[in-house]
Amino acid sequence: MEAVKWNGDSVTILDQRLLPLKEVYNTYKNYTDVAYAIKSMETRGAPAIGITAGMGIALAAKTITAKSLEEFKEEMEKVLNLFASTRPTAVNLFWTINRMRSLILSARDLDVIKSALETEAIKILEEDIAANKQMGKNGARFLDDGDIVMTHCNAGALATGGYGTALGVIRAAIEEGKQIEVFACETRPYLQGARLTTWELLKDNIPVTLITDNMSGYFMKNGTIKKIIVGADRIARNGDVANKIGTYSHSVLAKEHGIPFLVAAPISTLDPDTPTGDDIVIEERSVDEVAYIGNVQIAPEGIKIKNPSFDVTPAKNITAIITERGVIEKPEGKGIIELF
Amino acid sequence: MEAVKWNGDSVTILDQRLLPLKEVYNTYKNYTDVAYAIKSMETRGAPAIGITAGMGIALAAKTITAKSLEEFKEEMEKVLNLFASTRPTAVNLFWTINRMRSLILSARDLDVIKSALETEAIKILEEDIAANKQMGKNGARFLDDGDIVMTHCNAGALATGGYGTALGVIRAAIEEGKQIEVFACETRPYLQGARLTTWELLKDNIPVTLITDNMSGYFMKNGTIKKIIVGADRIARNGDVANKIGTYSHSVLAKEHGIPFLVAAPISTLDPDTPTGDDIVIEERSVDEVAYIGNVQIAPEGIKIKNPSFDVTPAKNITAIITERGVIEKPEGKGIIELF
Repeated sequence: MEAVKWNGDSVTILDQRLLPLKEVYNTYKNYTDVAYAIKSMETRGAPAIGITAGMGIALAAKTITAKSLEEFKEEMEKVLNLFASTRPTAVNLFWTINRMRSLILSARDLDVIKSALETEAIKILEEDIAANKQMGKNGARFLDDGDIVMTHCNAGALATGGYGTALGVIRAAIEEGKQIEVFACETRPYLQGARLTTWELLKDNIPVTLITDNMSGYFMKNGTIKKIIVGADRIARNGDVANKIGTYSHSVLAKEHGIPFLVAAPISTLDPDTPTGDDIVIEERSVDEVAYIGNVQIAPEGIKIKNPSFDVTPAKNITAIITERGVIEKPEGKGIIELF
Repeated sequence: MEAVKWNGDSVTILDQRLLPLKEVYNTYKNYTDVAYAIKSMETRGAPAIGITAGMGIALAAKTITAKSLEEFKEEMEKVLNLFASTRPTAVNLFWTINRMRSLILSARDLDVIKSALETEAIKILEEDIAANKQMGKNGARFLDDGDIVMTHCNAGALATGGYGTALGVIRAAIEEGKQIEVFACETRPYLQGARLTTWELLKDNIPVTLITDNMSGYFMKNGTIKKIIVGADRIARNGDVANKIGTYSHSVLAKEHGIPFLVAAPISTLDPDTPTGDDIVIEERSVDEVAYIGNVQIAPEGIKIKNPSFDVTPAKNITAIITERGVIEKPEGKGIIELF
């Protein structure tokens, strides 16, 4: 399953807004369309955003007209800023942008840099897949044969280069021969769990049960859920994790019930410039995401609505952070620093 | 605002399934239609279910043909069983049915009992409104001027005879001159918060902000939410409270953040036959309530879905249970017994 694909002169993106009912792939030859596909959540998930931005930047390098290397660098800086403005919480986006900017700044030849940016975009994708598989191997030991594992949002193939972070760990445990069943929280307002996680697990024949977000406590209390694993949009230097709204509540419930709460995320999600979770700016998205589901209006006109897209889970609520470079158990404290 | 109304020879019910976009009132002359209106959630909320059932039973008494008192009693027992089967978790339903059954069993005259059942149905409605107002007076002291108070589901005028339990306490605090703002959790899957609580508060000009259920922890952690107040569908002898799915999770989050967690419910919600929350059978409703929102399908075919409609909040998570007969603070322990 490929959420995003590089074609040499265009980028193909699976329109995740139409899932699970329609599987539509759009091919863009214009980098501004790629940026808009990120902003409008045609593609989403922190790692996939980084990968798509890399491809969009490589596409821009191939398509913008610049007479000199200097002009190219100026134009590309505008391109980088355009991509930086699409989804501010996803640190992988900035990580990609910084990688691309480093290459651009050190460029000495116009043709060489265009080709180097393309190579780098492909490398970002390939590194992501390799990192996900390694993350899966590192984290699979936390999941036991017969476990029902709850996840929130979509930290799967659709959110990454093709294997998944949280769902990658589940895939790895299954590849080791363990029987794992997934409880997917629907993840209001955007319903990534209901629409995407169920869809990709169904495609892989991994047993999946959909619940609403507010059922997680019920199924923890009655002993159904044995483990929780989620992805991350940004990890602060102290181990605090920003992830999809609702993650924090699940972490408090996990603590209450003594259920392991695992975070799987690539090293690119760690943000050394963010000391703690309090320093993470939370993206507020359109209130229409709450007020409408498809074309169905669920709330009256004239009321106030809030739509913070992320929340912060403090390190103390996290059993382990699983990365491709290793696992940090009890990330509150010094363990996390070693990864930076 | 009247969710249900007795017309002497018919029952008028506000179709809450169509709110907030359409305000449609249906008038039923047939008691089986009234029973179906409860089952299909045209009307809902534990007290309103009890009130509607009372009217439906009075309507049945007026419309069934029975040649003798004995035949009437037999036929009415079938009617009572029909209403008992509509919504099994709402204890108020059984409380109404038992009141009506007592009258029927002791009846000596056919005309007298028909009239007595009508009088009893009206009394159940009037008692509910009076109880709600008293509950409001008893509970208003828990809410402070300037508070943002979170609620879940709809425990308002629409769920009762016309004032509300949880929202009745909020209304009473506002009538005392306090400024109160409400955060309404949307309450998936059936969206009673988004559709009903916002609608009735808007009608009363009470400031209301809609959030998704999974945002409650976020707004508790950042200090926005000062109090939480909910209704109840059934209260066990030990003070455990069954209420709409999601209530339990909010109670754990409230405990984590030191936020008062209040339950407002009439005495009729207390169930002496239920020793603890573990003895409450949780109604499982159609999985289509999760898979579809209006006509929008949000999950793929072929997956499993769970839809428990209620959960149980243990007494230890509850700051106070507010009833029309008085308030029990820290209901874990002996306080609750005195109310029975």
